[in-house]
Amino acid sequence: MKFTCDTKELSRACNTVSRAAATKASIPALEGIKIDIKGKEVRLCGYNLELGITTMLESKGDSEEDGSVVLDAKMLCNIVKKLPNALTTIQADKKSTVTIKSGDSEFQLVYIPADKFPELPKIDEKSAISIPQAVFKEMIQQTIFAVADDAAKPIYTGALFKVEDGGLTMVGVDGYRLAKCHESIDYHGQPFDCVVPKKALLEISSLLDESGDKAVDISIGLRHAAFMIGNYEIFTRLLEGEFLDYEGAIPKSHATEIKVDVRTLVESVNRVALVVSEHLRSPIKMHVGNGQIGLSCATSIGAASDTLDANISGDDLLIGFNHKYLSDALRNAGCDEVRLQLNGPLSPMVVLPNSGDSFVFLVLPVRLKAG
Amino acid sequence: MKFTCDTKELSRACNTVSRAAATKASIPALEGIKIDIKGKEVRLCGYNLELGITTMLESKGDSEEDGSVVLDAKMLCNIVKKLPNALTTIQADKKSTVTIKSGDSEFQLVYIPADKFPELPKIDEKSAISIPQAVFKEMIQQTIFAVADDAAKPIYTGALFKVEDGGLTMVGVDGYRLAKCHESIDYHGQPFDCVVPKKALLEISSLLDESGDKAVDISIGLRHAAFMIGNYEIFTRLLEGEFLDYEGAIPKSHATEIKVDVRTLVESVNRVALVVSEHLRSPIKMHVGNGQIGLSCATSIGAASDTLDANISGDDLLIGFNHKYLSDALRNAGCDEVRLQLNGPLSPMVVLPNSGDSFVFLVLPVRLKAG
Repeated sequence: MKFTCDTKELSRACNTVSRAAATKASIPALEGIKIDIKGKEVRLCGYNLELGITTMLESKGDSEEDGSVVLDAKMLCNIVKKLPNALTTIQADKKSTVTIKSGDSEFQLVYIPADKFPELPKIDEKSAISIPQAVFKEMIQQTIFAVADDAAKPIYTGALFKVEDGGLTMVGVDGYRLAKCHESIDYHGQPFDCVVPKKALLEISSLLDESGDKAVDISIGLRHAAFMIGNYEIFTRLLEGEFLDYEGAIPKSHATEIKVDVRTLVESVNRVALVVSEHLRSPIKMHVGNGQIGLSCATSIGAASDTLDANISGDDLLIGFNHKYLSDALRNAGCDEVRLQLNGPLSPMVVLPNSGDSFVFLVLPVRLKAG
Repeated sequence: MKFTCDTKELSRACNTVSRAAATKASIPALEGIKIDIKGKEVRLCGYNLELGITTMLESKGDSEEDGSVVLDAKMLCNIVKKLPNALTTIQADKKSTVTIKSGDSEFQLVYIPADKFPELPKIDEKSAISIPQAVFKEMIQQTIFAVADDAAKPIYTGALFKVEDGGLTMVGVDGYRLAKCHESIDYHGQPFDCVVPKKALLEISSLLDESGDKAVDISIGLRHAAFMIGNYEIFTRLLEGEFLDYEGAIPKSHATEIKVDVRTLVESVNRVALVVSEHLRSPIKMHVGNGQIGLSCATSIGAASDTLDANISGDDLLIGFNHKYLSDALRNAGCDEVRLQLNGPLSPMVVLPNSGDSFVFLVLPVRLKAG
């Protein structure tokens, strides 16, 4: 195996695919990057059995040799980052050594034979959709904060993708809150659902381009999904299990509606939450009435209160909530003003955009002690 | 106690003095900031019995009340950082509560009575010196990397200040390396020595202004030293014990001298060191000869080598060293080119500026295995 690459391109590619390499695995190949050379085509792949990332580069040399090896991902990234010359040549001998050469610098590393690397999953494509990268990035942002990090039910560590005629709905839930968003897409096949792990969505989001109108092509199979983003392909195992009936959880009417500036409310919530600590949890109380939102909180550290103006219609109200859940929802709304819809102190708070319902966030209330 | 301050000024002041507050102490007052009001003068102080920082602010209100309280440093910093209004009023009642008010936000905290705060040390001034902040900052940078973080002998966790007629010398040593630097100062008193803890030097350095020609005034007593930097005063306990005879440790002649570009050498050393890990320590070998420096290193991970041009006079040489010590010395030299002076493979490597001897760094060699 032999090829010559642009050092910076190689470094960028190694860093990206290495994010799918395991950091600690009993099989060393899972901590590696697989390099395949075929003619001028250099293919890099990291795959930890749950998540995989591959990319392609072009060899810039004049004497490539086909072949495959696996190199420790961390070591390879560190070396390539520090290489001095604009071009780098990587060559494997028949035995076990790879030589990395750039300018006057030379490294010799022991490689792992390519047949120790796990086989990549074949995606038995059930459906394919395409969506602009910027739109998909915003959908991930508006859902992922509500996806559980680890849950008693593993299905809630992923976001539901519900694909229907003309639309994609994404939903995240963790038992205390719910985030749902919806966008139109050009799809006219059978409706179907799948649940994509949070870890994969985080990697996908970091590769998505916020500007421009390039699309991400998603192909979804029975057990795996693949996301094509420019030169990168990310594939992930799907989660299995039964997802919450989220439509049933969202209140259909409201007794109180508040229009409020997102930033002002986030700042007030965070300020009042300063007297809450990991050991001294206490709900934030929200008094709604007379054109104002009053926030207050008291713990054994001290007490805090704040007041802000808001556009309120409907009943006055006193409700308690966990500050983190409300501020997470507001921070990820991606708009300047939101509507809060309430149904008394025991019903979830609904957060909606100023107009329309491109997203819906639910925050469960905390029952306040009498007195 | 009552005063009104500019919120941003107060936040900056709290953040700085809180760096001298203990993060975990059996006496809660040591984790606090003491606030003293006297007329319009607001004095803030953090003091953990080893290091103290004080600063002054002006009250901008019209109804100050003299008095003193201690507030938890972390809590106070967090609150003040998030206050909404340009002005903040802090008021203590007779019992135990402080009210912090800014705009519509209000906090109530329990305070610690001021008499629980430790008394600040009185500096029995022995000597006083003054030095431009930028010069002092560079001296700290050129010494502190060689000061031990924790040592069998506590005296080596500080830098020696040697004050003589017309000059200040600073020295750091940790058993494997030595850094010494010297600058002229306007001093004509008795010569004397003291050892200032690394922790204090780090705080001092962060307050020193690199630009401009403002001075830092240092007053040194028997057990404490105080550094006046603009509006801040930092005082520290001095370390006691016998410091190394550093002049005796510095070789007076050399068999080989190398003039080399600092950045090129640092990059090469770091590159070759990539095959070294915490578990696989191995010295870097340096071959000097034929107008070139050859660096190489081999561990069970792999092997690395690199070559760079240098201006060499004197004997050829093969020497081993710990990569971290050499790259630390080079990174802190603060110049583009240095001289390396060598006396065979068992004598320390001396690093000097391109001309003069404003600093001298020593790096002890590692004995290479035969073969």
